[in-house]
Amino acid sequence: MLYLIGAGLHSYEDLSLRSINILKECHKIYYENYTSLQQIPIKDLENYLGREIVICDREAIETGVNFFEEAKNNKVAILVPGTPMFATTHIDLVLKANENKIDYEIIHNASILNVYGCLGLYSYHFGKTVSIPYFTDTWKPTSFYSNICANMKNNLHTLCLLDIKVDENRYMSVNEALEQILYCEEELKHGCIKPDTRVFAICRFGFPDECIEYGTVEEIKNKNFGAPLHSLVIPSTLDVVEKEIVEYLYPNLIN
Amino acid sequence: MLYLIGAGLHSYEDLSLRSINILKECHKIYYENYTSLQQIPIKDLENYLGREIVICDREAIETGVNFFEEAKNNKVAILVPGTPMFATTHIDLVLKANENKIDYEIIHNASILNVYGCLGLYSYHFGKTVSIPYFTDTWKPTSFYSNICANMKNNLHTLCLLDIKVDENRYMSVNEALEQILYCEEELKHGCIKPDTRVFAICRFGFPDECIEYGTVEEIKNKNFGAPLHSLVIPSTLDVVEKEIVEYLYPNLIN
Repeated sequence: MLYLIGAGLHSYEDLSLRSINILKECHKIYYENYTSLQQIPIKDLENYLGREIVICDREAIETGVNFFEEAKNNKVAILVPGTPMFATTHIDLVLKANENKIDYEIIHNASILNVYGCLGLYSYHFGKTVSIPYFTDTWKPTSFYSNICANMKNNLHTLCLLDIKVDENRYMSVNEALEQILYCEEELKHGCIKPDTRVFAICRFGFPDECIEYGTVEEIKNKNFGAPLHSLVIPSTLDVVEKEIVEYLYPNLIN
Repeated sequence: MLYLIGAGLHSYEDLSLRSINILKECHKIYYENYTSLQQIPIKDLENYLGREIVICDREAIETGVNFFEEAKNNKVAILVPGTPMFATTHIDLVLKANENKIDYEIIHNASILNVYGCLGLYSYHFGKTVSIPYFTDTWKPTSFYSNICANMKNNLHTLCLLDIKVDENRYMSVNEALEQILYCEEELKHGCIKPDTRVFAICRFGFPDECIEYGTVEEIKNKNFGAPLHSLVIPSTLDVVEKEIVEYLYPNLIN
């Protein structure tokens, strides 16, 4: 039996009672540590459970550990940051479990998608989510920007997930993301995001020091929001009620 | 202090350790029982906590209970089905807490949005979520159908949340929803959903007897999926990888 268990947003206390009960019964516990920043201090969870947890990088998850052999006769858990199945890696695990005729169970948890309701924006006004990848000297893809603009044209807000390179300890900041967005606008001239466009900086969502700010691209770009993880929400035109709520909950940085 | 706590998808065991610790410290515990089906058997949670939980209908939440007076000098918790803040009611509570200068904290949990990753569809291929309201003899709004078709035209999948009338004990089934969708197509002739269009029936998501099936509108419409809650996902054209995964995970009902 293979359990894919969402570890939630911040600490091991985000685990559900059900997850804790399952983990206590498991023969082996792994922690998938490359689709997001490892948010849970693993030592705390090890102490709480009185059990060892094996941290897995991409290679270990994709080729190194034979979860399926182990799960044939034992209960095996893979903890994942946030909630399972948004990452392709987790879908691959489920497909391989199927191929190996291993039963599996998915235990859901909170993830960055929970931010949808938290800004005063209607959750049904969000369009497709986009990922913003780190530019390199020779690779500067701009399609994410076209997707944001397409959402805006359809009057839909956009959640932007920012790139992470766990093995290099690099986590894109809202500042870096906005620099890249302005570069794309410079290149493509869609005209949808300018320095005075208002956006949400979402920093350490679900952490005790969570910080959500609403301000212009120019304001947000020049402010230091501290440690990762960061995300962005680019709102489309707010309707009357959204505008009232947003301006009440998140007074603009300036004016 | 006011806590808005997501109760998750099925039982009190979906509550996080953090939520349990907070609930144990609270002076009063309420359960908001009208934005979704009450999924947690409240007696179980009362027994587990050794505490009374007050169930609130719409009237109690909106006007009947003065949470803010109570929260001025005490810790007060409002449990909500799924996760807080997707429902306008929860945004209202936060606004009122602000007005009353009451500190509040939101504890996230899993919700129906977690289904995004679970079908073999890429989560970033989902467009805006739509709600399908119960038709009456004199009120048959069709805008939800135009929104589904707009998503499809933009190559985006649609999560459809189905109407509930908690006080009448009515919860829309996938069958009723599909009847209404076919009615809209008949009226509007968008040509995007026909009896042979393939859709996902999502029944009791996150429950031990969760049932997810993939089949044509005609097949799903004629099958009994049992107890609520039901949701629908209307996929747009699947890309090559999605098609492979979906057909592997969810063999079509027929062929």
